Amino acid sequence: MSTSWLDEVKWDGQGLVTAIAQDATSGRVLMVAWMNRESLLLTAQTGVAHYWSRSRNRLWKKGEESGHLQTVKELRLDCDGDVIVMQIEQAGGIACHTGRESCFYRVLNGGAWETVDAVRKDPASIYRPS
Amino acid sequence: MSTSWLDEVKWDGQGLVTAIAQDATSGRVLMVAWMNRESLLLTAQTGVAHYWSRSRNRLWKKGEESGHLQTVKELRLDCDGDVIVMQIEQAGGIACHTGRESCFYRVLNGGAWETVDAVRKDPASIYRPS
Repeated sequence: MSTSWLDEVKWDGQGLVTAIAQDATSGRVLMVAWMNRESLLLTAQTGVAHYWSRSRNRLWKKGEESGHLQTVKELRLDCDGDVIVMQIEQAGGIACHTGRESCFYRVLNGGAWETVDAVRKDPASIYRPS
Repeated sequence: MSTSWLDEVKWDGQGLVTAIAQDATSGRVLMVAWMNRESLLLTAQTGVAHYWSRSRNRLWKKGEESGHLQTVKELRLDCDGDVIVMQIEQAGGIACHTGRESCFYRVLNGGAWETVDAVRKDPASIYRPS
Protein backbone atom coordinates (compact mmCIF):
# COMPACT_ATOMS: atom_id res chain seq x y z
CA MET A 1 0.00 0.00 0.00
CA SER A 2 1.33 3.45 -0.94
CA THR A 3 1.95 5.80 1.96
CA SER A 4 1.41 9.03 0.02
CA TRP A 5 -1.84 9.47 1.96
CA LEU A 6 0.34 10.28 4.98
CA ASP A 7 1.65 13.34 3.14
CA GLU A 8 -1.87 14.76 2.96
CA VAL A 9 -2.00 14.95 6.75
CA LYS A 10 -1.07 18.40 8.04
CA TRP A 11 1.42 17.48 10.75
CA ASP A 12 2.03 20.19 13.34
CA GLY A 13 5.39 21.62 14.37
CA GLN A 14 6.07 18.52 16.46
CA GLY A 15 5.06 16.19 13.63
CA LEU A 16 1.79 15.30 15.33
CA VAL A 17 -1.89 15.20 14.49
CA THR A 18 -4.90 15.09 16.84
CA ALA A 19 -6.65 11.70 16.89
CA ILE A 20 -10.17 11.14 18.23
CA ALA A 21 -11.31 7.63 19.14
CA GLN A 22 -15.07 7.27 18.80
CA ASP A 23 -17.00 4.13 19.75
CA ALA A 24 -18.16 2.64 16.44
CA THR A 25 -21.40 1.38 17.97
CA SER A 26 -22.52 4.03 20.45
CA GLY A 27 -20.84 7.02 18.81
CA ARG A 28 -19.43 8.12 22.13
CA VAL A 29 -16.12 9.99 22.03
CA LEU A 30 -13.87 7.85 24.20
CA MET A 31 -10.53 9.65 24.12
CA VAL A 32 -8.37 12.13 22.25
CA ALA A 33 -4.63 11.72 21.84
CA TRP A 34 -1.81 12.40 19.40
CA MET A 35 -0.33 10.47 16.51
CA ASN A 36 2.90 10.91 14.61
CA ARG A 37 3.51 9.55 11.15
CA GLU A 38 4.71 6.19 12.41
CA SER A 39 1.76 5.66 14.75
CA LEU A 40 -0.80 6.60 12.12
CA LEU A 41 0.84 4.25 9.62
CA LEU A 42 0.88 1.42 12.17
CA THR A 43 -2.76 2.11 13.01
CA ALA A 44 -3.72 1.82 9.35
CA GLN A 45 -1.55 -1.23 8.73
CA THR A 46 -2.50 -3.23 11.81
CA GLY A 47 -6.07 -2.06 12.43
CA VAL A 48 -5.15 -1.40 16.06
CA ALA A 49 -4.84 2.16 17.39
CA HIS A 50 -1.31 3.41 18.00
CA TYR A 51 -0.59 6.88 19.36
CA TRP A 52 2.38 9.04 20.21
CA SER A 53 2.71 9.62 23.92
CA ARG A 54 3.91 13.16 24.50
CA SER A 55 4.46 12.54 28.22
CA ARG A 56 6.56 9.44 27.64
CA ASN A 57 7.92 10.64 24.29
CA ARG A 58 7.45 7.30 22.60
CA LEU A 59 5.17 5.23 20.40
CA TRP A 60 2.19 4.00 22.39
CA LYS A 61 0.07 1.05 21.39
CA LYS A 62 -3.14 1.78 23.28
CA GLY A 63 -3.84 -1.12 25.66
CA GLU A 64 -0.29 -2.45 25.62
CA GLU A 65 -0.35 -2.57 29.44
CA SER A 66 -4.06 -2.70 30.21
CA GLY A 67 -5.13 -5.00 27.39
CA HIS A 68 -7.69 -2.36 26.41
CA LEU A 69 -6.80 -2.39 22.71
CA GLN A 70 -8.76 -0.38 20.16
CA THR A 71 -9.75 -2.12 16.94
CA VAL A 72 -10.08 0.47 14.19
CA LYS A 73 -13.01 0.20 11.79
CA GLU A 74 -12.61 3.48 9.93
CA LEU A 75 -10.22 6.41 9.69
CA ARG A 76 -11.40 9.87 8.61
CA LEU A 77 -9.46 13.08 8.04
CA ASP A 78 -10.94 16.55 8.37
CA CYS A 79 -11.00 19.34 5.80
CA ASP A 80 -7.89 20.98 7.25
CA GLY A 81 -6.06 17.67 7.40
CA ASP A 82 -5.04 18.12 11.01
CA VAL A 83 -7.52 15.93 12.88
CA ILE A 84 -8.27 12.20 12.54
CA VAL A 85 -11.50 10.57 13.71
CA MET A 86 -11.39 6.81 14.20
CA GLN A 87 -14.36 4.51 14.58
CA ILE A 88 -13.19 1.89 17.04
CA GLU A 89 -14.19 -1.11 19.12
CA GLN A 90 -12.87 -0.65 22.63
CA ALA A 91 -11.67 -3.86 24.29
CA GLY A 92 -12.87 -4.12 27.89
CA GLY A 93 -15.20 -1.16 27.42
CA ILE A 94 -12.62 1.08 29.11
CA ALA A 95 -10.66 3.76 27.27
CA CYS A 96 -9.70 6.04 30.18
CA HIS A 97 -6.78 5.50 32.52
CA THR A 98 -9.16 6.28 35.38
CA GLY A 99 -10.98 3.01 34.63
CA ARG A 100 -13.95 4.71 32.99
CA GLU A 101 -15.45 4.01 29.58
CA SER A 102 -14.57 7.47 28.28
CA CYS A 103 -12.13 10.19 29.26
CA PHE A 104 -15.04 12.64 28.99
CA TYR A 105 -16.72 11.82 32.29
CA ARG A 106 -17.09 15.42 33.55
CA VAL A 107 -20.04 17.61 32.57
CA LEU A 108 -20.29 21.35 33.11
CA ASN A 109 -23.22 21.75 35.47
CA GLY A 110 -24.09 24.92 37.35
CA GLY A 111 -20.62 26.36 36.99
CA ALA A 112 -18.67 23.23 37.98
CA TRP A 113 -17.31 20.13 36.28
CA GLU A 114 -19.40 17.31 37.69
CA THR A 115 -18.22 13.71 37.40
CA VAL A 116 -21.17 11.80 36.01
CA ASP A 117 -19.70 8.46 34.89
CA ALA A 118 -18.77 5.57 37.14
CA VAL A 119 -15.39 3.86 37.30
CA ARG A 120 -15.79 0.45 35.68
CA LYS A 121 -12.59 -1.02 37.03
CA ASP A 122 -10.07 0.11 39.65
CA PRO A 123 -7.06 1.52 37.77
CA ALA A 124 -4.76 -0.21 40.28
CA SER A 125 -6.06 -3.56 39.04
CA ILE A 126 -5.83 -2.50 35.40
CA TYR A 127 -2.19 -1.46 35.39
CA ARG A 128 -0.71 -3.72 38.07
CA PRO A 129 0.77 -6.91 36.59
CA SER A 130 -1.46 -9.81 37.57
CA MET B 1 -22.01 31.89 37.91
CA SER B 2 -18.48 31.40 39.19
CA THR B 3 -15.81 31.05 36.54
CA SER B 4 -13.42 28.94 38.63
CA TRP B 5 -14.32 25.98 36.37
CA LEU B 6 -12.28 27.72 33.67
CA ASP B 7 -9.18 27.32 35.84
CA GLU B 8 -9.58 23.55 35.72
CA VAL B 9 -9.06 23.59 31.96
CA LYS B 10 -5.46 22.86 31.01
CA TRP B 11 -4.82 25.68 28.52
CA ASP B 12 -1.87 25.10 26.20
CA GLY B 13 1.06 27.45 25.60
CA GLN B 14 -1.15 29.64 23.42
CA GLY B 15 -3.96 29.66 25.98
CA LEU B 16 -6.08 27.31 23.89
CA VAL B 17 -7.95 24.06 24.31
CA THR B 18 -9.19 21.61 21.66
CA ALA B 19 -12.98 21.65 21.21
CA ILE B 20 -14.95 18.91 19.47
CA ALA B 21 -18.47 19.61 18.20
CA GLN B 22 -20.56 16.45 18.11
CA ASP B 23 -24.10 16.29 16.76
CA ALA B 24 -26.30 15.75 19.82
CA THR B 25 -28.74 13.58 17.87
CA SER B 26 -26.65 11.50 15.47
CA GLY B 27 -23.42 11.47 17.48
CA ARG B 28 -21.44 12.43 14.40
CA VAL B 29 -18.30 14.44 14.98
CA LEU B 30 -18.90 17.58 12.94
CA MET B 31 -15.79 19.67 13.49
CA VAL B 32 -12.82 20.29 15.74
CA ALA B 33 -11.50 23.75 16.52
CA TRP B 34 -9.85 25.75 19.29
CA MET B 35 -11.18 27.78 22.18
CA ASN B 36 -9.51 30.29 24.45
CA ARG B 37 -10.80 31.25 27.86
CA GLU B 38 -13.07 33.96 26.50
CA SER B 39 -14.65 31.77 23.83
CA LEU B 40 -15.29 28.90 26.24
CA LEU B 41 -16.88 31.28 28.74
CA LEU B 42 -19.06 32.82 26.02
CA THR B 43 -20.04 29.34 24.85
CA ALA B 44 -21.14 28.39 28.35
CA GLN B 45 -22.91 31.69 29.01
CA THR B 46 -24.77 32.00 25.72
CA GLY B 47 -25.31 28.33 24.79
CA VAL B 48 -23.91 29.07 21.34
CA ALA B 49 -20.49 27.76 20.28
CA HIS B 50 -17.69 30.32 20.14
CA TYR B 51 -14.16 29.42 19.09
CA TRP B 52 -10.79 31.08 18.71
CA SER B 53 -9.74 31.36 15.09
CA ARG B 54 -6.00 30.77 14.87
CA SER B 55 -5.91 31.79 11.20
CA ARG B 56 -7.73 35.07 11.80
CA ASN B 57 -6.40 35.50 15.34
CA ARG B 58 -9.75 36.53 16.76
CA LEU B 59 -12.85 35.36 18.56
CA TRP B 60 -15.09 33.42 16.20
CA LYS B 61 -18.77 32.88 16.77
CA LYS B 62 -19.41 29.83 14.61
CA GLY B 63 -22.03 30.71 11.99
CA GLU B 64 -21.56 34.49 12.31
CA GLU B 65 -21.29 34.72 8.51
CA SER B 66 -23.04 31.56 7.34
CA GLY B 67 -25.86 31.52 9.88
CA HIS B 68 -24.81 27.97 10.75
CA LEU B 69 -24.83 28.51 14.49
CA GLN B 70 -24.23 25.70 16.94
CA THR B 71 -26.56 25.42 19.93
CA VAL B 72 -24.73 23.74 22.78
CA LYS B 73 -26.58 21.13 24.84
CA GLU B 74 -23.71 19.81 26.93
CA LEU B 75 -20.04 20.53 27.61
CA ARG B 76 -17.66 17.80 28.78
CA LEU B 77 -14.01 17.97 29.78
CA ASP B 78 -11.60 15.06 29.52
CA CYS B 79 -9.44 13.53 32.24
CA ASP B 80 -6.40 15.59 31.25
CA GLY B 81 -8.47 18.77 31.07
CA ASP B 82 -7.20 19.69 27.62
CA VAL B 83 -10.08 18.66 25.36
CA ILE B 84 -13.75 19.73 25.38
CA VAL B 85 -16.54 17.71 23.77
CA MET B 86 -19.75 19.60 23.05
CA GLN B 87 -23.11 18.09 22.21
CA ILE B 88 -24.61 20.51 19.72
CA GLU B 89 -27.48 21.17 17.35
CA GLN B 90 -26.10 22.35 14.03
CA ALA B 91 -28.20 25.02 12.30
CA GLY B 92 -28.58 24.31 8.59
CA GLY B 93 -27.09 20.84 9.00
CA ILE B 94 -23.76 22.17 7.75
CA ALA B 95 -20.69 22.53 9.96
CA CYS B 96 -17.93 22.49 7.33
CA HIS B 97 -16.81 25.48 5.30
CA THR B 98 -16.91 23.19 2.23
CA GLY B 99 -20.73 23.06 2.56
CA ARG B 100 -20.76 19.56 4.00
CA GLU B 101 -22.44 18.34 7.17
CA SER B 102 -19.12 17.41 8.77
CA CYS B 103 -15.49 18.35 8.25
CA PHE B 104 -14.71 14.62 8.37
CA TYR B 105 -15.83 13.74 4.85
CA ARG B 106 -12.73 11.80 3.78
CA VAL B 107 -12.26 8.11 4.59
CA LEU B 108 -9.02 6.18 4.27
CA ASN B 109 -9.77 3.56 1.64
CA GLY B 110 -7.16 1.43 -0.13
CA GLY B 111 -4.34 3.80 0.69
CA ALA B 112 -6.09 7.03 -0.27
CA TRP B 113 -8.36 9.58 1.36
CA GLU B 114 -11.68 9.15 -0.43
CA THR B 115 -14.34 11.87 -0.26
CA VAL B 116 -17.54 10.06 0.68
CA ASP B 117 -19.91 12.86 1.72
CA ALA B 118 -21.78 15.18 -0.60
CA VAL B 119 -21.72 18.95 -0.51
CA ARG B 120 -25.09 20.09 0.83
CA LYS B 121 -24.76 23.70 -0.25
CA ASP B 122 -22.32 25.56 -2.50
CA PRO B 123 -19.89 27.43 -0.22
CA ALA B 124 -20.09 30.42 -2.57
CA SER B 125 -23.77 30.78 -1.72
CA ILE B 126 -23.12 30.25 1.99
CA TYR B 127 -20.54 32.96 2.46
CA ARG B 128 -21.56 35.53 -0.20
CA PRO B 129 -23.93 38.17 1.17
CA SER B 130 -27.38 37.54 -0.30
